[in-house]
Amino acid sequence: MGEVKPNEEEESNAFLQLAECELKVDAIEKDVAQYRLDKMKSVYQERDGLVNKIPEFWKIVLSQHTDFANYIRASDFTYVDCIQDVKVEWDNVDEFKIIIKFDGIKDDFEAQTVTKQFKRQKIIDDTKSKEDSDSDDDDDELEKLISEPVDIKWPKKYEDICPESIQDKKSPEGKKKYRQGMKSLFGWFRWTGLKPGKEFPHGDSFAELIVDDLYPYCVKYYTEAHRDLEDENDDSDSESEGELDLSDDEGNENEPKRRKL
Amino acid sequence: MGEVKPNEEEESNAFLQLAECELKVDAIEKDVAQYRLDKMKSVYQERDGLVNKIPEFWKIVLSQHTDFANYIRASDFTYVDCIQDVKVEWDNVDEFKIIIKFDGIKDDFEAQTVTKQFKRQKIIDDTKSKEDSDSDDDDDELEKLISEPVDIKWPKKYEDICPESIQDKKSPEGKKKYRQGMKSLFGWFRWTGLKPGKEFPHGDSFAELIVDDLYPYCVKYYTEAHRDLEDENDDSDSESEGELDLSDDEGNENEPKRRKL
Repeated sequence: MGEVKPNEEEESNAFLQLAECELKVDAIEKDVAQYRLDKMKSVYQERDGLVNKIPEFWKIVLSQHTDFANYIRASDFTYVDCIQDVKVEWDNVDEFKIIIKFDGIKDDFEAQTVTKQFKRQKIIDDTKSKEDSDSDDDDDELEKLISEPVDIKWPKKYEDICPESIQDKKSPEGKKKYRQGMKSLFGWFRWTGLKPGKEFPHGDSFAELIVDDLYPYCVKYYTEAHRDLEDENDDSDSESEGELDLSDDEGNENEPKRRKL
Repeated sequence: MGEVKPNEEEESNAFLQLAECELKVDAIEKDVAQYRLDKMKSVYQERDGLVNKIPEFWKIVLSQHTDFANYIRASDFTYVDCIQDVKVEWDNVDEFKIIIKFDGIKDDFEAQTVTKQFKRQKIIDDTKSKEDSDSDDDDDELEKLISEPVDIKWPKKYEDICPESIQDKKSPEGKKKYRQGMKSLFGWFRWTGLKPGKEFPHGDSFAELIVDDLYPYCVKYYTEAHRDLEDENDDSDSESEGELDLSDDEGNENEPKRRKL
């Protein structure tokens, strides 16, 4: 790269200090997350009890959520509809469990409650070698979500794709079935985060979706889903935006998706 | 609806209590947000100074961010590239200003720093009439982001769509130009949140994108964008997922977008 000019030195100093700054930011985010959990704990418990009294609460939340469906197979929704309850319990910011209670389906799927435990852990980022990185603003340490595989009884209908019942895992057909199973909702319960590419894909994001989005905002999602369902049954075109000035111009749709409510 | 059965009564009680619960949740979220701001204040100030020393920091962040481009016109990026600095200053959780510093373009666009002030306000939701809502779990009060229009000098190239220079706002052509201007980045600076449909579309979400996402996570976005740019220039196929077991199956893409880093 030749000699280092004063400007370059100032710039690379800025990068170093920025990296330190980000560590401070991360530490504050952790502290804030813990503060939030402590404050929310009793309200969440109260809410868990109330939500249980509302029929099909989780079925409505999960089937209407935009992102949730992207993680699992369309056919899994038969069993998503069996989900009677979803609970998240935090030991602390970095350790939590997701507890899912399934109703059964006669002759196909056994009613059960499954608890999956998660942990955030610092790991060394081995996806890039030391030589590759020519900047010092990364300390090569990543935080990663990991979990333990947990037993769940698969539906009878999924017997041909359930890893445990597949005898032949070598033939193209056997491999295909195996993959289909691993990518199903049931495959996620085996996810550990330690064998990337060999497990349920994006198992960490799926867990985070539940923990950081679906569970905290479940009532808002339920209300929204309920309104959408009512709107579908509603003929009146009372939408406020329909009659207004800018909306008949097709030039620029400006309709980005919003995640939070 | 006929007579109210015991189950229905329990259910509607649950809804009432759930609504109260959500008010508690909202109050805690506010409290947590304020706690976060207080903790972050000095780190953000330090970071603002460092970011300023890195050439094209905001140009890279803004041009590489997935959502940002959805809000404005493609041609606006000429002026997005002029953005030298973005700062957010909070008076408190519900009141903040976004300060944007533009470099100029000779003979087209004047260098300037523009400060836009925002406020979250409780308003009565007049999009639904009392008769429409048959549930009591809404108190018809919404929190809304509003702002004041702020002067900004438009580029010469935008003279034909700048609301102030359009003489004829009645003809179809005049209306079209007016709308194009209102939907541009510069139209956003006039956004108030009080005339839905007649202003920059989704001006509130655009402000929230900057305040809740772009500004807090700017360094993470910069790092990510930088890596992406490096990857584009990189021929080696060293991506870890490329060689692994599940990824060659096309059945289920499982690639949902993640917003946070």
